[in-house]
Amino acid sequence: MSTVVQMKWMEGMAFEAEVTGHKLIFDADEAVGGKDLGPRPKAVVLGSLGGCTGMDVVSLLKKMRVDFDDFEMSIEADLTEEHPKVYSRIMIRYIFYGDDLPLDKIEKAVNLSQEKYCGVSAMLRSTAKLEYRIELRKKA
Amino acid sequence: MSTVVQMKWMEGMAFEAEVTGHKLIFDADEAVGGKDLGPRPKAVVLGSLGGCTGMDVVSLLKKMRVDFDDFEMSIEADLTEEHPKVYSRIMIRYIFYGDDLPLDKIEKAVNLSQEKYCGVSAMLRSTAKLEYRIELRKKA
Repeated sequence: MSTVVQMKWMEGMAFEAEVTGHKLIFDADEAVGGKDLGPRPKAVVLGSLGGCTGMDVVSLLKKMRVDFDDFEMSIEADLTEEHPKVYSRIMIRYIFYGDDLPLDKIEKAVNLSQEKYCGVSAMLRSTAKLEYRIELRKKA
Repeated sequence: MSTVVQMKWMEGMAFEAEVTGHKLIFDADEAVGGKDLGPRPKAVVLGSLGGCTGMDVVSLLKKMRVDFDDFEMSIEADLTEEHPKVYSRIMIRYIFYGDDLPLDKIEKAVNLSQEKYCGVSAMLRSTAKLEYRIELRKKA
């Protein structure tokens, strides 16, 4: 099972990647010679983390026949001070909106993703303390 | 030093992330209930890897006053068979185009990125055997 990503240098610090048929631009901050043409590569890893665990959770809740109005995640992470700078702590907030949401089933789905399915979590956990929290909210 | 990424569920398996001021969509394959509105999250990690090490190398070569006509990377990775599926092997090809390219300086820049600076490489190396290779080419 092989994944191939092609990257082309654009200009300055910017690169265009072709990932599973989609183009993505990565660029650095202006402070370090970039032009902010796209997001920072290391921060995008946190987006991948959210996409990976979020898709697990949506798919598991569908199987459990749990409906929700909306679902958001907020992912916060700290980097080490020394090179190579890696994530040392990651906090994922899973925020579900709806009425009478079943916390037990949502916890089960999130735990299954974090403990069994989410490969990006598993890779990041080798350097980071990965914590997560579930919040249930009613739509305003 | 804290990074925050916000994710919103869109529909089906699709999520929109806001990463360092840029919007990114992640989606699953149609075979697993997605609509391919964006790339797969785990594959995007390889794009982050390329962006991270690519920016290091461009920046180091600029300091070393090494010019090149073009620079591409090809990143290939294998996943484990068992859940959580993580990268078990990654091969990065650094491909430089130009005349009379100084292989020693290019090797130095790539090695510095891989051994010292690139945090995404350091995080992925915990599960993957990460190999790399440099190719020098003349523009056709």
